[in-house]
Amino acid sequence: MTDATIEPFLRNGWYVAAWSDELDKGMVARTIMNEPLVVYRDQNGKAGAVEDRCCHRGAPLSVGKIVENGLQCGYHGLVFDTNGKCVEIPGQDNIPPAAKIRAYKVVERQRFCWIWMGDPALADEGKIVDYPWHDQPAKWPHRTAVMDIKCNYFMLVDNLMDLTHLGYVHTKTIGGNPKAHVNAQMDVTRTDQGAHYIRWMMDSKPPPTYVKGAGFAANVDRWQEFEYFLPGSIVQWSGALAVGKDAKADRNQDGFHLRVFHGMTPQTEDTCYYFWSTANGYRQNEPEATQQMYDEIYPTFVEDITILEGQQARVAREPDRPLVGIKADVAMTHARRSFRAALEKEQGLSRAAE
Amino acid sequence: MTDATIEPFLRNGWYVAAWSDELDKGMVARTIMNEPLVVYRDQNGKAGAVEDRCCHRGAPLSVGKIVENGLQCGYHGLVFDTNGKCVEIPGQDNIPPAAKIRAYKVVERQRFCWIWMGDPALADEGKIVDYPWHDQPAKWPHRTAVMDIKCNYFMLVDNLMDLTHLGYVHTKTIGGNPKAHVNAQMDVTRTDQGAHYIRWMMDSKPPPTYVKGAGFAANVDRWQEFEYFLPGSIVQWSGALAVGKDAKADRNQDGFHLRVFHGMTPQTEDTCYYFWSTANGYRQNEPEATQQMYDEIYPTFVEDITILEGQQARVAREPDRPLVGIKADVAMTHARRSFRAALEKEQGLSRAAE
Amino acid sequence: MTDATIEPFLRNGWYVAAWSDELDKGMVARTIMNEPLVVYRDQNGKAGAVEDRCCHRGAPLSVGKIVENGLQCGYHGLVFDTNGKCVEIPGQDNIPPAAKIRAYKVVERQRFCWIWMGDPALADEGKIVDYPWHDQPAKWPHRTAVMDIKCNYFMLVDNLMDLTHLGYVHTKTIGGNPKAHVNAQMDVTRTDQGAHYIRWMMDSKPPPTYVKGAGFAANVDRWQEFEYFLPGSIVQWSGALAVGKDAKADRNQDGFHLRVFHGMTPQTEDTCYYFWSTANGYRQNEPEATQQMYDEIYPTFVEDITILEGQQARVAREPDRPLVGIKADVAMTHARRSFRAALEKEQGLSRAAE
Repeated sequence: MTDATIEPFLRNGWYVAAWSDELDKGMVARTIMNEPLVVYRDQNGKAGAVEDRCCHRGAPLSVGKIVENGLQCGYHGLVFDTNGKCVEIPGQDNIPPAAKIRAYKVVERQRFCWIWMGDPALADEGKIVDYPWHDQPAKWPHRTAVMDIKCNYFMLVDNLMDLTHLGYVHTKTIGGNPKAHVNAQMDVTRTDQGAHYIRWMMDSKPPPTYVKGAGFAANVDRWQEFEYFLPGSIVQWSGALAVGKDAKADRNQDGFHLRVFHGMTPQTEDTCYYFWSTANGYRQNEPEATQQMYDEIYPTFVEDITILEGQQARVAREPDRPLVGIKADVAMTHARRSFRAALEKEQGLSRAAE
Repeated sequence: MTDATIEPFLRNGWYVAAWSDELDKGMVARTIMNEPLVVYRDQNGKAGAVEDRCCHRGAPLSVGKIVENGLQCGYHGLVFDTNGKCVEIPGQDNIPPAAKIRAYKVVERQRFCWIWMGDPALADEGKIVDYPWHDQPAKWPHRTAVMDIKCNYFMLVDNLMDLTHLGYVHTKTIGGNPKAHVNAQMDVTRTDQGAHYIRWMMDSKPPPTYVKGAGFAANVDRWQEFEYFLPGSIVQWSGALAVGKDAKADRNQDGFHLRVFHGMTPQTEDTCYYFWSTANGYRQNEPEATQQMYDEIYPTFVEDITILEGQQARVAREPDRPLVGIKADVAMTHARRSFRAALEKEQGLSRAAE
Repeated sequence: MTDATIEPFLRNGWYVAAWSDELDKGMVARTIMNEPLVVYRDQNGKAGAVEDRCCHRGAPLSVGKIVENGLQCGYHGLVFDTNGKCVEIPGQDNIPPAAKIRAYKVVERQRFCWIWMGDPALADEGKIVDYPWHDQPAKWPHRTAVMDIKCNYFMLVDNLMDLTHLGYVHTKTIGGNPKAHVNAQMDVTRTDQGAHYIRWMMDSKPPPTYVKGAGFAANVDRWQEFEYFLPGSIVQWSGALAVGKDAKADRNQDGFHLRVFHGMTPQTEDTCYYFWSTANGYRQNEPEATQQMYDEIYPTFVEDITILEGQQARVAREPDRPLVGIKADVAMTHARRSFRAALEKEQGLSRAAE
């Protein structure tokens, strides 16, 4: 089951298309599942995503502008609303019914702009990953980023569902001692919507960042928790409490808390967007601490990109060549299995619809 | 009829291969209709175009040099004349009959170097577009340019045969008020060799360039005239006369006159060369006025390139997807129809020859 | 027989994969015959080449590092020896038999790292080109280089087996008078392992470099000797002795001596590595003379690259189009014939093995 690394697109699911911050500055051109799109917020505040192609002469709408009634093509001035309907054609009053473009269902929530690329009838907003911390900027000040990676989006899921890579990929940054990562005890479970793992390091020495952040004077109980949600989100909570606070029973106590959101959105079969945010839950009143965490994490992810893009290049040369599983693959394997179950279901649905 | 934007090559027609100015400085390597060529003028002053590939080992002749008897290969010194005949092989006296390269019919005239890529038997020099103003540098001082654009050459014809785009593409430069362009009255006619339109703005305020150029003190009658000639030339005349001079009856009177030549030459199916020249017919004794007009037009055409290359990318993804016509397409549609009639004729000829 | 320029890979032969100097600094990632490899020397001093792809998740091993037991993957820490066997998997004691990667036979000798890409049973070390001068740095101080060229490797063999190109390609550097090169007398012979030629210029004026190098006061007898060894090596000896020393009978006397090694290794069908070294046999005690010769030769080879890459582009467009042979092709033709005989033998062997 883990003998491949390139996954096809799972269409019926919510993916991050953009950060709200990006739309604040104007429209954004993205390619998702091979489809060039414009993601934007209209003058009434409604977010939308339409194909990046005018129905008149095929010009890209992303070189147009946002006007009163919608998105205006930069070539001959046709205007489209967020449903893809043409609402204005310069020089004529009558708008033919064929004058429309593809539009995608979009939900802007918790600083994310989520997109649904599959069957619109199945687009259930209740299945969007909940990430309430983005709505609490005072308690969880955060920064967001988006990276363009030349690998299949699932390689990035694998990467995050297997922390043993820390000791090898991140030797210059957060890696530390490889054996510690390899030998840490993990609790891995498959969930309804993906897979979950937590690693505990009980009664251990807190790293410098933790000491500085939370003022620990003695040993701590540390955890790293990752949950994969179908199709392309991972929610991370890393933290530590002073020994004696019974962290395993209740982690929501004062201590060190870092939350990271990871969103993997397929651009093409062999490229993806990586949306991530880091939220500072330990020195909330210090904007420089939020920035510093971001500045530490950024080069770490660049180290991953080097590996991932090389992996993509190698695997794409010989996509059918078998790979060899190892024990450390356990959480990754659960994520893959959830994904493939969903994929089979989707493919079954589409066959049934034929 | 206008539901596509990518046109195949029309071979039986004269295209601009180079400017004479370019050949003054040496040979030029160009790719026309997918064929790599060298365009050059030999030491007797005869312009020619031959394939950019030596018959000996396939080296590109464009890294050779022009010598007494022709074009010398930069690898082993073989020399070819403008008919493609090998006239010298270092180290041997006998030249085998197979030692020849493809040559193309070329006519240098009025500062253009025209090339015929089709059936040589049909190459009628009488069908070359006449552009006498290039031969009158005192009356029409001009500047020439060539740009490399990543779009099918006919997208550029469309662009020029539809001035409603001025108000949207050129908002930062010459665009002005979109509605004025959209609502201007046009006379469009299909001609034997293409299509023609003229737009009149009677009794209107002259723009600053016009005032500066021709010293207008009051309103003018303005026109913009474009004529498309098969397969890839457009001749533009923009100008204005003082109201009362009866411009419609006779435009050849003192006033403001700007002539622009536009040549579209297919490089590949999705790239083209854009040859253009601007001739100053209003401040002929001021070389800086000629330069200034060129400097104003250059960035305007760069704005078009952004749109055209985006349009090419979008259309090439889904070449068979229908487009939606609008009223403003009228002149463009006539040009397309002329082109397709010529294309059908050419394809009929080639079928008949089989 | 010389009517093509692109040759397929000859697998059963020794190619240069790297210079020993390169391995002194760490591992080297190369692509040979379309296969991405890592060439490296392990901590016991044994050179090896393995595929640049981990068997676990396909990550490139070239972003890993050399550790005590072998080459460690930079993703999850698996370690491989020079035979491609996995010797360590972090987090588990048992190593499954499938955990292995492709390894290639490698011989490090005379500052070369030779690789065998064909049938391992046929890898006879006795057939490696002997180049003893690299082992005599006091007598033959030398410098090495590797270039990446976008042409089929055999185009580079052709280039070196035909010195008439000097007068056309190298007009700005070592070319001199084209006629002199074209008309020089050549002795060309086909050998068991390739082809050989020597050109003599008797009683001729020594060039400035020769005078400076060997202090000639009068005319010299000069030679240029090139020997092609299957599949991709050429050994060059250029030199001169004072007239009267009977150079033809014994060239191993004091005078001017320059040795150049040329190694052509196919990267893909249309790209190759060019390994070359220049050895100073005339001012051995002056390191600046060794460097100066290198600095003179480098730009000369860059002139060749311009031609070769253009030739590749032209030939690849129309690979089956015939070329026209000329008299100057004689040595090149012998090299091609040797190569094709070896190729036919190899293809016969592989058919017999089916």
